[in-house]
Amino acid sequence: MSQQLRFVTEAESRSDDVPWGVNEWLCNGDLCEAEKLGLVRVHVPPGKGHSFHRHPSLEEIIYVVEGECEQWVGEERRMLSAGGMAHIPVNMVHASFNTSDKPLVLLAILSPAKGPEPMTVDVYDEEPWKSLR
Amino acid sequence: MSQQLRFVTEAESRSDDVPWGVNEWLCNGDLCEAEKLGLVRVHVPPGKGHSFHRHPSLEEIIYVVEGECEQWVGEERRMLSAGGMAHIPVNMVHASFNTSDKPLVLLAILSPAKGPEPMTVDVYDEEPWKSLR
Repeated sequence: MSQQLRFVTEAESRSDDVPWGVNEWLCNGDLCEAEKLGLVRVHVPPGKGHSFHRHPSLEEIIYVVEGECEQWVGEERRMLSAGGMAHIPVNMVHASFNTSDKPLVLLAILSPAKGPEPMTVDVYDEEPWKSLR
Repeated sequence: MSQQLRFVTEAESRSDDVPWGVNEWLCNGDLCEAEKLGLVRVHVPPGKGHSFHRHPSLEEIIYVVEGECEQWVGEERRMLSAGGMAHIPVNMVHASFNTSDKPLVLLAILSPAKGPEPMTVDVYDEEPWKSLR
């Protein structure tokens, strides 16, 4: 059932366990009256990461809230710390890893709020991605 | 001239002085290859605020990075602290104020990256907004 929350804090957020940590949803079409914007706070423990994937119909921004992130956009790699971001055009392959010994917290900002399936296509077992790191 | 930055940190951001503090642009169609997503980090000193306004063609999320925010969405008011957010449907009136004695830092997340003008319509001198606070 879709809600129309105007304000979302940790108390109203919805957390899902995922292989790279926890996806804490703050804004999507179920929580809010959102059409163009989705927001998920991603908690990535040391040693974990969301390996190479693409979103066929979503544009994305990754914004680092806390910690250090080994961020890939296409075949470009950059270490981002709190306050840094990456812009990921629609369908561009990307990945985020926590190679530090401290927690990493990211915001994944998505547009639109919901695209046609599949939302995500994993490519980490395909070249050139499987040989990049 | 439009750039296609994939990574943006404080070093690459573009800051504009505005009446409510500083708008530090991290993602828009000039800095990045952005179509659906704009991102601006807003620095609001104590006592300042971005009073009641609406965006006729933009959906928005306000996410609090640091400090305390008196956030309005329509006629609903909520105090948000770091990690809290507000969702603002297209054309809904909203406002953000720093009533504390410490800095307030927000992310304003916008979709699409650029809408038709006017991007913003001020309504703070119209009822019911001018009598709300």
